[in-house]
Order: sequence, then structure tokens, then C-alpha cells
Amino acid sequence: MHAEGASSDLLAMMAGVREVEAALSDRARIQAMLDVEAALAEAEAALGVIPAAAAAPIRSAARGQDYPLRELADQASSAGNLLIPLLSRFRQTVAASSPEAAGFVHWGATSQDIIDTALALQLRAALSVLLDDTDRAARAAARHARQHATTVMAGRTWLQQATPVTFGLKAAGWLDAILSAAKRVRASRDAVLVLQFGGASGTLAALGGQGPAVARELASRLDLALPPLPWHAQRIRVAALAADLGILTGAFGKIAQDLSLLAQSEIAEAFDAPEAAGGSSTMPHKRNPVRASIVQACALRAPGLVATMLGAMPQEHERGPAGWQAEWDVLPDLVRTSASAARATAALLEGLVVDAGRMRQNLEQAGGVTMAEAVVMRLAGALGPADARQAVEAAVKRAAAEPRPFAEILAADPRVSAVLDREAIDRALAPEHYLGSSGQFIQAVLEAYEREEHTES
Amino acid sequence: MHAEGASSDLLAMMAGVREVEAALSDRARIQAMLDVEAALAEAEAALGVIPAAAAAPIRSAARGQDYPLRELADQASSAGNLLIPLLSRFRQTVAASSPEAAGFVHWGATSQDIIDTALALQLRAALSVLLDDTDRAARAAARHARQHATTVMAGRTWLQQATPVTFGLKAAGWLDAILSAAKRVRASRDAVLVLQFGGASGTLAALGGQGPAVARELASRLDLALPPLPWHAQRIRVAALAADLGILTGAFGKIAQDLSLLAQSEIAEAFDAPEAAGGSSTMPHKRNPVRASIVQACALRAPGLVATMLGAMPQEHERGPAGWQAEWDVLPDLVRTSASAARATAALLEGLVVDAGRMRQNLEQAGGVTMAEAVVMRLAGALGPADARQAVEAAVKRAAAEPRPFAEILAADPRVSAVLDREAIDRALAPEHYLGSSGQFIQAVLEAYEREEHTES
Amino acid sequence: MHAEGASSDLLAMMAGVREVEAALSDRARIQAMLDVEAALAEAEAALGVIPAAAAAPIRSAARGQDYPLRELADQASSAGNLLIPLLSRFRQTVAASSPEAAGFVHWGATSQDIIDTALALQLRAALSVLLDDTDRAARAAARHARQHATTVMAGRTWLQQATPVTFGLKAAGWLDAILSAAKRVRASRDAVLVLQFGGASGTLAALGGQGPAVARELASRLDLALPPLPWHAQRIRVAALAADLGILTGAFGKIAQDLSLLAQSEIAEAFDAPEAAGGSSTMPHKRNPVRASIVQACALRAPGLVATMLGAMPQEHERGPAGWQAEWDVLPDLVRTSASAARATAALLEGLVVDAGRMRQNLEQAGGVTMAEAVVMRLAGALGPADARQAVEAAVKRAAAEPRPFAEILAADPRVSAVLDREAIDRALAPEHYLGSSGQFIQAVLEAYEREEHTES
Amino acid sequence: MHAEGASSDLLAMMAGVREVEAALSDRARIQAMLDVEAALAEAEAALGVIPAAAAAPIRSAARGQDYPLRELADQASSAGNLLIPLLSRFRQTVAASSPEAAGFVHWGATSQDIIDTALALQLRAALSVLLDDTDRAARAAARHARQHATTVMAGRTWLQQATPVTFGLKAAGWLDAILSAAKRVRASRDAVLVLQFGGASGTLAALGGQGPAVARELASRLDLALPPLPWHAQRIRVAALAADLGILTGAFGKIAQDLSLLAQSEIAEAFDAPEAAGGSSTMPHKRNPVRASIVQACALRAPGLVATMLGAMPQEHERGPAGWQAEWDVLPDLVRTSASAARATAALLEGLVVDAGRMRQNLEQAGGVTMAEAVVMRLAGALGPADARQAVEAAVKRAAAEPRPFAEILAADPRVSAVLDREAIDRALAPEHYLGSSGQFIQAVLEAYEREEHTES
Repeated sequence: MHAEGASSDLLAMMAGVREVEAALSDRARIQAMLDVEAALAEAEAALGVIPAAAAAPIRSAARGQDYPLRELADQASSAGNLLIPLLSRFRQTVAASSPEAAGFVHWGATSQDIIDTALALQLRAALSVLLDDTDRAARAAARHARQHATTVMAGRTWLQQATPVTFGLKAAGWLDAILSAAKRVRASRDAVLVLQFGGASGTLAALGGQGPAVARELASRLDLALPPLPWHAQRIRVAALAADLGILTGAFGKIAQDLSLLAQSEIAEAFDAPEAAGGSSTMPHKRNPVRASIVQACALRAPGLVATMLGAMPQEHERGPAGWQAEWDVLPDLVRTSASAARATAALLEGLVVDAGRMRQNLEQAGGVTMAEAVVMRLAGALGPADARQAVEAAVKRAAAEPRPFAEILAADPRVSAVLDREAIDRALAPEHYLGSSGQFIQAVLEAYEREEHTES
Repeated sequence: MHAEGASSDLLAMMAGVREVEAALSDRARIQAMLDVEAALAEAEAALGVIPAAAAAPIRSAARGQDYPLRELADQASSAGNLLIPLLSRFRQTVAASSPEAAGFVHWGATSQDIIDTALALQLRAALSVLLDDTDRAARAAARHARQHATTVMAGRTWLQQATPVTFGLKAAGWLDAILSAAKRVRASRDAVLVLQFGGASGTLAALGGQGPAVARELASRLDLALPPLPWHAQRIRVAALAADLGILTGAFGKIAQDLSLLAQSEIAEAFDAPEAAGGSSTMPHKRNPVRASIVQACALRAPGLVATMLGAMPQEHERGPAGWQAEWDVLPDLVRTSASAARATAALLEGLVVDAGRMRQNLEQAGGVTMAEAVVMRLAGALGPADARQAVEAAVKRAAAEPRPFAEILAADPRVSAVLDREAIDRALAPEHYLGSSGQFIQAVLEAYEREEHTES
Repeated sequence: MHAEGASSDLLAMMAGVREVEAALSDRARIQAMLDVEAALAEAEAALGVIPAAAAAPIRSAARGQDYPLRELADQASSAGNLLIPLLSRFRQTVAASSPEAAGFVHWGATSQDIIDTALALQLRAALSVLLDDTDRAARAAARHARQHATTVMAGRTWLQQATPVTFGLKAAGWLDAILSAAKRVRASRDAVLVLQFGGASGTLAALGGQGPAVARELASRLDLALPPLPWHAQRIRVAALAADLGILTGAFGKIAQDLSLLAQSEIAEAFDAPEAAGGSSTMPHKRNPVRASIVQACALRAPGLVATMLGAMPQEHERGPAGWQAEWDVLPDLVRTSASAARATAALLEGLVVDAGRMRQNLEQAGGVTMAEAVVMRLAGALGPADARQAVEAAVKRAAAEPRPFAEILAADPRVSAVLDREAIDRALAPEHYLGSSGQFIQAVLEAYEREEHTES
Repeated sequence: MHAEGASSDLLAMMAGVREVEAALSDRARIQAMLDVEAALAEAEAALGVIPAAAAAPIRSAARGQDYPLRELADQASSAGNLLIPLLSRFRQTVAASSPEAAGFVHWGATSQDIIDTALALQLRAALSVLLDDTDRAARAAARHARQHATTVMAGRTWLQQATPVTFGLKAAGWLDAILSAAKRVRASRDAVLVLQFGGASGTLAALGGQGPAVARELASRLDLALPPLPWHAQRIRVAALAADLGILTGAFGKIAQDLSLLAQSEIAEAFDAPEAAGGSSTMPHKRNPVRASIVQACALRAPGLVATMLGAMPQEHERGPAGWQAEWDVLPDLVRTSASAARATAALLEGLVVDAGRMRQNLEQAGGVTMAEAVVMRLAGALGPADARQAVEAAVKRAAAEPRPFAEILAADPRVSAVLDREAIDRALAPEHYLGSSGQFIQAVLEAYEREEHTES
């Protein structure tokens, strides 16, 4: 049903989020609008607002595949939205089987009621997939945090080796971020899965006193929540969802960027699963971070889409001529983008190949100077902090000039050897003895994760 | 202390958010960093991590006005952040009174610990003002919702007159939006008012086993919450605050835009307080929507700032070279922007002059055709929806061509007059009889507001 | 060939830019890549780099409809881009007719060479349509500028009536903006319609010394310009095109916003062509600014897309893992958005219904006080500017309080009547006498337009 | 004169662009507005539009330091802009020396005329500095391109080592990008250094027939160009400058990102000058890419600011209530950001320490497999492309499993040894023999650079 000329979202295709693409497809869009019209008729029939006999013919006509998107769009260009021409054809279809019922199609509603409510239905389907993938990513991050709690690697600040961390701590940081961001998305999803129903100006005037009852019944039939009032030109719900999807995508982007950097030829500490690491026939040695790349690209796309959703918020009076219309393409784009990032991050973390040996080796490459701080801390008690720092800095400078091991240089300084013998120096320089509270931090995050998993299930 | 060459934020100045500007000023920035250093020393002294005697001289030296920003910034350009040169001067100042204490300045911390925690202190001050102004805006919106629950005006969709609403309903929509957005900001604020404390690579290794105890003590002294682990390169907290400020600003932007439009010369239904409606000496009749304009400009600025905060999220490894640095100017800009919008919206709503007479008059200008839907609904029962629509559409067309009142034209149609006598037609055309559930919607929002106010106080 | 799950761009569909959609479609994308591969083989065969016999079988296999997008995308998810799996199938197709030729497919090229060059081909087609529509919009604006050079209407600043302008001057401002923006887009288009050809790392090493010759031949066959060096990770060309499309869309957005505002029920000075002004069956009196709305929505979307293109510029080393990938969906989205704005603006301006009578009537509604400045200027010579201002301000204040005409109030002030008799006052208050240099400004723009049209044709 | 509460731009301070900060400072803003008012009076006096004696007292009062920004801003909050209260005080100051002259202050102008023209004056000063720094960066890039034309290093795609390039080629790519972007900025600057002068509604009506003459005289006195018509609500000039600054900043961002990545501990191929590479006392071995970091942060900030400028383009009618106001803070922010990036990039490139030995060493680390493509190309003639690829791929796989050198493995394959003897294999594997057209590409860029330098001087 989609039109000739359609252009698929490449990142979404590469991420393989077919269910999300389907939920946001042209076909799904039209079906969702028809579902809302049918449910509305049924709700109104149940409450006696329209004749009981009108509901069935309306429901029967609500089959999306019968309505051609491209022709509807042509008419939408003068009607102002897709629903108006759809409605016109829908009424004809209903009229073919029941002329009387046709008059009660869309009773008391305005186009935006149907379009926004249909969007909620589409979002429900798409976000469910996205959150499942997010859970997968969290689970995989948790596994890495647990398994690599003592896998020592270089901490890196400014892309320079700093004091050591563990790969488990890095993964715990990712996990904590995913959990926080997912929590926000879940809350925003709950807030957006609501009915839109206000009629022409948002008063439900066409339904007389029965507006609230119809709204309640319709929301219940669609399994959507009921907002305190129609929200035609008040777009916080969709803007907030957008913002939280942007944040989640940013959290995934950080993971992916870390992994692209760790996969560099010269670092080579972690890689995407072999089957996914794209290569080229003429450069078969490469291990391209393909899935990380999808995620990073999504993280580049999301902020601009979020900004547009925020920029579209000031919608004029009861319905504006611009902001809502701008949302139509942007929010689905953003959902696809975030869902692509979630899917690719989950796959990336699940298949991740971690090279603990190389991590250790890279850390030792600098010959121990990255451990300088550890030595200062051991000396500070005896020498005082100032002298401790001075002694170690001198040793670091010497280490840059001389080919001797850092431990040996330290041991040769009488200020150092007065406090630490060679064994103590070696112990100070062993990264596994300088991990501070890494283990506790990992533990804290894992406990929070397990609590949350427990609560949700 | 701010540098020659400083450039004030014009919108913030015009909004008059002096406390916010002060909380985010150069001076406050430096003082906050020194406050964190002093509290750190005190916490460590209390726990015996550093000598008890070291805390007092450190605290004494922590007076921001003694440190010149511009010179610090010059040195920051090679150090990479403002804290490093500040620390160097701070140590000298401490050393002047206690050389021993100087060695224990900044013990176990990394620059980002201090800078991010100082940011939390600044945000606490600034957000408190912003939220107070938001409450003011909510209160004023609630008052309008209550007072104008039956003040009839044109609903406007696509900037065209549609079926009637009430000014109270419009205000209730604003109120609902402010409440939702403020709730989000409060939650984000709570999440960001946390300690940052991890040392060089986020493991607190320099503090041996005492890291968590120091963190707890420091958080308690600064009255900040304690996160499960350091968050140097995990920026969800600040990104989420940014996003929620963007959403709040968007909600204010919608209010301001509605009011700019209502103040148009040809509409003239509501105005900023006379003292604020800027004019020009040569065009003294103008009632420029000056405060609305500030808010609208803020709403234009916020999305780009939010996008930058989201785009900065993927920060490399344990501390990156770009994203964090990009936040430094952008988050304060955004807080100022949102706070300016809050202040100006509050003042605008508090001083708002509503012209209920003009609202009615504009609604009646169209001679009743905006009420066409109401007539259809009255006729539909007797004529069936299709014929009812047809009869009314015919009358609307005639009304466009003939100078007669719409009621008269309707009455002249036998299909109509068979169902509705002239009095019934007039009743159908009276906007106050076609407000649907406006009252209930207003009530629902006001009740939620009162519940919330009650809860918070 | 597009995938199930495809989701069309609603605004593009409503704007009816089918040729642009087609140029950017899945089908066109694949065909363009195959066209580049075929031209490459032909160029290399012509220069003896590959066997002469290899070219024909390669060209024969280059039929896009034979290659299924969805399956390619599935494989792209591990390969990292769409070209690699396409190439693999393409080689098989070639091999079926000529195993020898298959080995020479893609000779010396890297994926990005093909993908970026294919993009240039797609952009050529799409931008040509966009620029034609832009020309249409300019032509229509020029017509309005000419025809309405003396059609007086209220100038409006801050959405308040100010001193008078002409509708022609407004249109001249639109025209000047379109011309400036279109000029930029033309220049950016010329800069982007270049070959991308560098091989694996951008050195063309695989072609030995023949790289430049092949590049020249290939560019010539594709009718693209030849850049000084490959631009794999240097994205100024695409970023600049994006920026200039954003600017053009902003220029259209201003026109559309002016027209949405002029179409307001209470202003009603200009409308979209009747067939396009969407309405609803229950509110048949409405003249919704549907086409303006499409343009305004496009103008809301463009800035976020431009920001993403700029944010994607820092691409790592010789080819990055994120920025280029982010461009893939974003640049086509932006081209569609801008082209939709161009098409809808052209149609809007061509069909525009201008109500000169209502313009005059709205201007006179204020009873002359909008002309206060004109009176000051007439009095200033005799009374001095200060007294002139004072006298007129007093009259304006009185006019707000008293129901008498402004002219009468002015005439009653002896300071005024000493200088201007009633006829002179009336003349001062006639808006057509207070249009300053409007005519010259319009003329200047029209002359520039005609010069440019002449040059281009 | 800047207000208490001012907050400096940290990145600008760290970049040290004091002249730019000064040009955009509060003080400069006020002085520029007064300069325009004085020049306007002088132009009008010269043409006899106002009394000749009025000019001198007006000029005398135009001293910025006499006007307190904070108090002006307080009044601006009801006036709607900074000029109105400044004007009121300015008139008082003039009146103190010449009451008559005071009446002729601002004669025929509107606030926006003065504010926008003052902006042009500020931009002229700031952009001049920015372009000088850009030239410095180009010069340094050109030097690297020349000096390192044969310095072999790993090409890197997807952050994986690919076939070799030279550091000179990388620098030539940077240079080409700087040149293209700077050319755009120069053109945008020329377009924005124009007069704004239209009076209340953009018609210059207050000046009767003398508007154009005054405009010409004023433009000439301020050394600004004269646009075809006032551009109050047509913002292409400023939006285009913004976009082009964004593009230039993106070009700098790419350079900085490359250099941050090259400075990584494990790669260590190029570094910022030692005096700028920030370090920490406890990690003295680190060579933090501090200046690159400033540039990267600027490149993150710019896109959001550009998006805001584009989003602000649709300004209502003759002057809007939102977009123009949003520009006030955003454009200066963007100029500071871009100028900071230019300054830091220039310094970074000028002081860059290139380690050619390490570049070679990193390239050889993979033992030759990165040269696989070179061997394929040498074998293809004899074996045909398919067999050549197959043989080399087999060798690469073996190389991953066996500790033998790649050359030896290749030599052991009879298919290879039949075509290439060991010496030929070694030659094929020497990166300096597989640089393709690098030299020509460098040359082409350097020639374009020299031509341009010649033209400009």
C-alpha cells in the first residue's frame, strides 16, 4: 500500500527492526486510524449515542488494505491531513453496505482525535519492541559487569591512559545508564498511551453531555488511558516521549562509541561478534565495528529530531497549522532511530568478544607510569603528600628518558626505598591492587538491576 | 570577577531573572568549586583520611572573590579545565597559612568531581528560582481557568475560527501543561542534585577502601544525594534535566504564542499588563506583546540547546575530550533560558488583561456560521446525519452570499424549520450552549492542581 | 522494490513532489549505485585499465529492479553498507554472463566511492525539480510585487498594526529572500555534483598511476565535476548543501507564516486558492491555510536536519564509523523537506487570492491612529520634533477615550491646526501618501530579479 | 559596564579569543548602537534632513561607557529591546547640551535599524579576527601537507587500519576543507555587512522622499554595503552567516577529532605542543589533547546554534515577536564558538608535534596484512582478479593464525611465487610504494591554496 517512491530508513533496515518498521508503516498508519474509527462507532453504539446497528458495518469497512495511500495523500494535500480523504472513502465503503451507518462514521470526532489516537496505537506496538531490545541490552551489560568485575584494563580520560579500571566497571556504567534511560522511556510511554478525543475545538460539544462517557468507553475499548482533557495543541506527551527516546539513544551511543574505540586496530580490546564485523575482500584483516556504527549514527540523528519535536511544541490556539504537522514524520523517524539503536546495541553487547589479555597488555605497555598515583598514595603517609608527589613525578620524568622499568627507577630513589621495598613497589604498581571501590560500584548497579527486574516481572 | 569582554544574556536580563543569573555567574561558579573543595577536606578530616588540622585552613582559603577568573581561564587553556589553575592558586593560598594542609587539598579527587559537584550546587540555586516562577505561572493560569470558565470565545484551529471554547478552557490547557512539565523538571532536578566523586578514573582508588565513606560524608555535608557510582562520562542526569527544561520552555512558549496572537490589533482579546506592553513614541496605539515575546524567543532557543546536550552524551571512556566540555556553557545557557521563560510567563499571566467583550464580539463577527456544527447536531436526530449536514451546509453557503443573518437563513429552510423553530435555532446558535464538556475539563485540571499543591506544601 | 514496512514522508506526499520522491526512492538509490559501477567499468575499459570486453556485461547487469532492497539491507547489517551486498549479487549477475568481467567489477573503488557518487546523481535529479519549483515561487512573488505595488495594507510589527506598507512590498521582500537563498542552493548544488573516487583510503593506490585518468574519465561519463582530491571524510559539500536547503526552506517558511496569519478569520486579507483551502464538512466557513501549513511544517523540520548534517561533519580519519552513516537518511529527508516547501510555496503563491479591499479596511479600522507618525513628521518642521510628538501623542490618547475620528481630534488642537488645515490633516492620514520608498524598494528587487532571469536563461 | 551576574563563555576564554569577546561584549554592543545613532545624525545633517547643528551634540553624547547596561536592560523588559531605553537616556544626554538636537536623535529610524546595523559593526570586528585565525590554521595545514607529503602512516577507515596514506595527504584534506569553508564565510560576511534602515515598517516613510539618500550616506559613513531593501523580517543574511560559521566549525572539528585520536596513548602519532598538552600532577605521563578538545567542544555546540538561527527565520510580517529576539544571544554565541574553534585549531596545527617514526611503526605493527590490497593488484594481471584475491585472502587468514611474516607466507604460495619473487613481494608490501596519487592530490590542494593566497593579498 505504500507509495511508489517510498524510501526506506537505511539505518532501521540495517538494524533489522522489522516489527518497528511495520508498526510505523504506511499500512499500519491507515489501519490504526480505521481501528479508532471502528472503536469509536462501537463505543457510541454501546452508549446509545448512535444507533446500535451502525457499529457493525463501520467495523466491517475498517480494513486498511482497501485504501490506497498515494491517492489519499493526493487528496490530503488540499484537505490538510490524511484522515479527511480516508474518511470520505471510508464513508463510501460503509455506505455501500449500510447507508444509514455511513452518516454515523466519525460521530462527534475531529480529524486530530483519530490521527493522534491512532498514533498512540502505533507507538504501543513500536515501543514494546524497543523496550524489549533495551532489556536485552541491559541483560547483556549486566552479564559483562558480573563476568568482568576483575578484568583489569586502562582507564582512559581524554583518550589517554589513566589509572586502571575494570571492564566490569565500564559495563556497570553502561547498565546504569540504560536502566535510568529506560525508566524514563517507560514513564513517557505510559503518559503517551492515552486517548485523544475532543471534537472540533476540544470541548466535545457535538456529543452534548455524553462526551466524557464516550471518551471513557472508547479509551477502555482501545486499552488507552484517559487524559484529564483533550490535548490537541498541548504536545508535552509526544515531546516528552521524544526527549526520553533521545536520551536513551544517547546512552546507547556512549556504549557504541566506547566499543568503536576499543576495537581500533591499535587497541583491539573488544570486538563485535565475528559474523557482524564487516570487512572488505581486499582488507580482510579489518574488524569494522559495524553494529556500533549503526548505534553511533542513530545517536547523531536523534538530537536533531528531538529538537524538532520541542520546537514544534508552541502550537497555535486549539490546533495550529505547523507544529502538529511537523510531528507527523519526525516522531516515527525518532522511534525508528531509537529502536534501531536499541536493537543494534543489544546484538552488539550480546555478541561482544572481550580480549582480557590485550586489555592487560595495553595497560602494561606504558611500563607502569600509569600507576604513578598509586605510588604517591602509598608514600604520602610517610613523606607527606608534597614530597610523595615530588618523588614520583621525578621518577616519571626519568622513566620517559631512560629505558629502565618504572619500578626500578622508583626503587633507586632513596626517598622511595626508605618507605617501600621493591616488593612493596611492585605491589603498588600492580593494577589489580589499585581498583578502589570498583567492585562495590559494580555491585550497587547490579543490585539495583536485579531489584528492578524482579519488580517488573 | 567576571572578565572584561563579558557579554550578558539579553533575554535573561530582560526577563529579570537576576537570582538565576547570579547563581550561574562566573563568581558563583568559582565559589561553588571552592565550597566543594572545602567540604571535601572537612569530610576527609572528619573521617581521619587527612589530618584533622588540615580542614580549617582549607576552608578559610575558599573565598571565591580572591581568585580572578580571567587569569584562571588563561591557564585553563593549557590545563584543560578551570579547576586545575584554580586549584594551583588555592593550594598556594592554603600554603600561606598552613603548608601542611596545602598538601591535602583536593585529596583523592579529580577535577571533574569538583566541577560537576559545583554545578549541582549552582543548579540547586537556579532551579529553585525557576520552579518558584513556574509555580507562579501555574497559579495565575489556575486563576484564569477558574474565573473564565464561562467566558466564551472563538476556538481557533488552523488560525481559523472554529466552534466556541472558553478562555477558562484555554487556561486549563496551559495549566495542565505547566503542571506536567514542572513535575518532570522536579524529578530531573532531584536526579541531578547528586554528588560526583570518583577520582582519576572513577574508582576512588586513591582513597583505598575509604572511598565510599568519604563520598557519603561529602554528599551529606553538601546536602546532595549519593549516586550508585560516579558518572563522569555518563551524562543522563544533565541531559535529562536539559530535556525537561526544554519541554517546560516549550509549554511556556505555547502560552506566549497564544497570547501574542490574541493581542493582535485585529483580535485584541487579551493583553500583557499595560506597564509591560511596549510601545513606541511614534506609534503610541501599539500594545506590543513584550513579555510574550521574551518567552517565545526562549522557546526558540531551548531546542537547539537541548539537542547539544543530547549530542554531547556519547562521552569517551572514563572522561572524553569534547562532550563534557560542550556542556559547560550550554547547560547554564539553557537554565537561564528556561528560567527567563518561567519568569516572563508568570508575570505575563499575572498581569494579563482579558477582554471578554471583545472575545464575544469576535465570535459573533461571523454571524453564526461558526455554530453550524451545533445546528447539525440538533437536526441529526430528526433528519439523520446526512440530511442534517446537507441542510446546514446549504445554509452556510447561502450565508456567504447573502447579507441575511444565519439564523434567518436556517429558518427559511423547511427541513430545518420542521425540526427547530426560530427560538430553538437561536438557542442552537448561542455559543454558551455549545461548550460541551469544557466545564468538566476545567474542573478536572483544577482538581489535579489543587491536589498537587496540597501534596507539595 | 522498497521494503514492506516502508513509511512514506507525509509532508512530501501532501506537497506532491513525486519526482523528488522518486529520485530519492529505494529504487533510485540502487539504480544510481549500479549506474556508477557500470560507468566505472566503461571508463576503465576505455583507458585499458580493465579488459575492454569487461564493460558490456557489467553494464548489462546494472538493472536496479533485479536487486531486492530488503534482502540487501539484511546483509548490509553485517557488511556496514548497502553497496557491499549489492556488489556481491551484482558480481554474481555479471558472472552469469561473463565470469571474466565479474572480476573487474568495482575495480579500484571503495564502497564510499560508489555510494557518494550515486548520491550526487540522485541529488542532481531531485535538486533540479526543487529549483524549478523555487523559480515558480519567485515568478509568482514577482507578479504580486508588481501587481500590488500600490495595494496599501497595514504594516505589522510585533503582530500589531504599524505604519502602512503595500502588499507589493511584502511580496518584494519574499522575492528578494527566495532569490538570495536560491542562489546559494545553486552554488552548493554545483559544489556537490562532483565525483567521489579515492579507493580504500583515498589515494587511488589500487590503480597505480592511472587513478587521476580514470577519475577524469568517470567524472566526464557521469557529467559530474572533478574535485581536487577525494572527500570521503571531508563533508563540507553535503553539509553546505544541507545548510543552504535549510536557509531556502526558512525563506519559504516566512512567506507561509505571513500568509497563515493573513488568512486568519479576523484578518482575512489573503487566502490560498479555494480548491486548496481545506475545510471540514461541519465547519464549511473555514479557509484553512493548508498549503501554507505544509510549508511551515517543513520549515520546522529543516533546522534539526541541518544540525544533524553539521554535527556529522567531524568524521574520523579516512572514513568514520558514524557521521557518514548518519547522513544516509538525513540528507534525503532534508531534500524532500525543502522540495516540499518549494512546491507548496509555488502553488500557494500562484493561486493566492488577495483581498485588497479588506487590507484597506483593516488598516482603517483603527481610525487613523496608525498614521500618527505621518502627522508628527508633517508637524515637526514647524513645531520642532518634541512639540510635534507631544501634540500627536496627546491626540492619540484622546482618540482612545473619545469616539471622534482621529482627524477631528487633531484638528481641534490649536498647535496642529496652526500648521495643518483639515484637508492637510486628511492628506497626512491617508496611508497611500505615507509609503515612503516602497515603490523604489520593489523596483530594485524586480530589476535584480529580471537581470538574474535574463542571465540564467 | 557588563552586569553583575555576567557569565563568561568558558570555551571562548580557554581559546583566548579576547578580541572577539571584546567585539561582542556588552560594552561593544552599546557603543555600536551609539555609533550608528551618531552616524545617522551626521548623515541626515549632511543632507539637510535635520539641522546641521544637531549632529555634533549627538556625536558627543555617543560614549558607551556613560550608559549602564543593567539599568537599560531592566527598562528593556517593558520596552521590548535595549535600544528604546538607551535612546531615552541618550536623548537626555544630548538634551543636556542641546535641547534642539535631542529632538533629532534617531530621526526616521526604528529600533531594529539601529540594533541590526550595530550588529553588523560588531560582526565586522569579530569576523576579521576569526578569519585571520582561519588563515593561520590554513597556513599551518599547508605546511604539514608540504612537509609530510611522503610521511607514511596508516589510513584508517572505521577506526581500523586500512591501506597507507601520508600525513601530508591528511593535512591536505584539512586544508582543502578550511579553504572551502573560509570562502563561504567570507562571502556570508560580505553579505551581512550591510546597512539596516527602513523606519517603522520598512518603507522609510518618515523621511519622505529622502530615505534612499540618507540610507546611501549612512551606509557610506559606516562603510557598510547598501541592500536593495530593508531586511527587518528577512533574515537570510544572518542565517547564512550562521550556517557558514557552523560549517567552518565542523571543518575544524574534523581536524581536532583526527588529532585527539592520533594522540591516544596506544597510537601516539601526533600531539599538541608540549606547553599546551594538559596533564595532571598525579598522571604526569598524560598528553591530554586540550586544544583539540576545545575545538571538538565548539564543533558540538555550533550545530544547535545554527539550527536556532534557521528556526528563527520565519519572522512575522514586518517585524516579529520572537525570531529576531532569539537571534540576539544566539548569533554572538555562535561567532564566539566559531572564533574559539579557529583560534584553537590554528594554535594546535602550528604547534603540532608529529611523530613520523611512530606512524611507520604503527603501520608495520600488523605485519604487512594492511598491504594485502597492494599484492592483489600486483597479482591480478597474471592470475586474474578472482584468483589474485583468493590467494591473498588465504595468506591473510594464515597470517592471523601463524606467527610468520606475511611476506613469507605469501612467498610460500606457489600461485604468488609464480608471479612475484620475494623481492617483488617485499616491494609490494612497502607502504611507500602504495600511495597512489597522494602526491598529486596534495599538490592540487596546495596549488589552489597558493592561488587563493595570491589573489587575496
